[in-house]
Amino acid sequence: MVKAIVFDAYGTLFDVQSVMKATEIAFPGYGAYVAQIWRMKQLEYSWLRSLMGSYVNFEAITHDALEYALTTLGLKPSSFLLKELVQAFNELAPFEDTQPCLEALADYRLAILSNGSGSMIDSLVTHAGIRDFFNQILSVDEVGFYKPHKEAYRLASDKLGLNPSEILFVSSNGFDVAGAKQFGYKVARIQRVSREFLTRDLINASAINFGPSELYQAMRSQLENLGQLPDHTLCSLFDLPQLTKALALECVETSEPA
Amino acid sequence: MVKAIVFDAYGTLFDVQSVMKATEIAFPGYGAYVAQIWRMKQLEYSWLRSLMGSYVNFEAITHDALEYALTTLGLKPSSFLLKELVQAFNELAPFEDTQPCLEALADYRLAILSNGSGSMIDSLVTHAGIRDFFNQILSVDEVGFYKPHKEAYRLASDKLGLNPSEILFVSSNGFDVAGAKQFGYKVARIQRVSREFLTRDLINASAINFGPSELYQAMRSQLENLGQLPDHTLCSLFDLPQLTKALALECVETSEPA
Repeated sequence: MVKAIVFDAYGTLFDVQSVMKATEIAFPGYGAYVAQIWRMKQLEYSWLRSLMGSYVNFEAITHDALEYALTTLGLKPSSFLLKELVQAFNELAPFEDTQPCLEALADYRLAILSNGSGSMIDSLVTHAGIRDFFNQILSVDEVGFYKPHKEAYRLASDKLGLNPSEILFVSSNGFDVAGAKQFGYKVARIQRVSREFLTRDLINASAINFGPSELYQAMRSQLENLGQLPDHTLCSLFDLPQLTKALALECVETSEPA
Repeated sequence: MVKAIVFDAYGTLFDVQSVMKATEIAFPGYGAYVAQIWRMKQLEYSWLRSLMGSYVNFEAITHDALEYALTTLGLKPSSFLLKELVQAFNELAPFEDTQPCLEALADYRLAILSNGSGSMIDSLVTHAGIRDFFNQILSVDEVGFYKPHKEAYRLASDKLGLNPSEILFVSSNGFDVAGAKQFGYKVARIQRVSREFLTRDLINASAINFGPSELYQAMRSQLENLGQLPDHTLCSLFDLPQLTKALALECVETSEPA
């Protein structure tokens, strides 16, 4: 029996692509390239530092990944601009389906489990005005391992006082879907870019169209081949309330966060 | 005092780009895209599976990453073709500086420490005719963690019976440079693509040229921003013998591999 819904933040509730506005203003003509390399490296660094045993928080990783992206593209930002762009990551726009989904699920026990540091997620939910929907807002910063390390996922089941199989974990990120499933959660994958759409986008009139957005979608929007499949695949968060009903999720008397 | 040189294989001794011939024959017009997404995912899967605690050997990872690349590009290979392409990864060409470098270092104690499975590296060194240069050929398969996990690096110092600081580790891969340095090796980075060259390549006559090769170079050929810097940076393996002399490496009476 599923008793709570735990959401990934970046890419699931919040649109990481929305930083592109800020990168394009800062570096006209390069904005999309900066944004995509930035996000690719941001995740790589979270994985690599977890493996190397040299954890730093996600704000530092976000800074380091941005610096990598800019240096690689031959761009030289001031430290002021670096700070300002990292700050843009704290003001990502929610997807259009985020608020309606949360409203429809307001009677359920909801949480966020994010790679972002406490202050980053805090900024995000405050900026988007969705803080009050959640019973728990959890950062992997508390355990010092990024997803998909099992200790990151254990944080949510521990804090909610539930078995992993009593949690429905919702993510659009392929690595996160695989990691959460491996840990034992029930998993709903939000398929924000379908394979058919991506292929049509990539291969256009027999030419290959591989701009920065296509690259990002090809590398990060698809189901990963990591030996774990989600229990449910939804086209968007709009479909989550219906799934919740089908799973007969328990409503809760919302109490104080544990 | 450095007493042995340990080489990374893929990208350092062997040119992973040489697999592109096989992918282009199999999928005309798509070869470069298949090859780059393949290699990007191959490394991602090695990191993610190490983090998830769901290790499989590098042959399985190579297969899964190729399948991801083909599916994402809307290509449907037969299982025969999949096997054949994975096999191409066992016949990568060595770089032009590989053999001359190894010949010049023949009196030193040399080893390979690779993510590749035992049989994959075996095929590589046999195919290239360079097996006899090495005292030890080590696969992380023995420990069940991929680089940059510290247990992967510990394998080489354990097998060579040396302290990490007595080993000069040679790699062109940014994540590998950072991981080896973090573990305590002396590290020589082979900078196969300089930042100046990459930037010139990416930004050509004020247009951005971001084909699959540029993408790969931008994502994988540069120094990573992971808090660790190499002790030495060389433009190619041609420069390694001179560094070896400068470091006054001990020649060894080559004995039986331990």
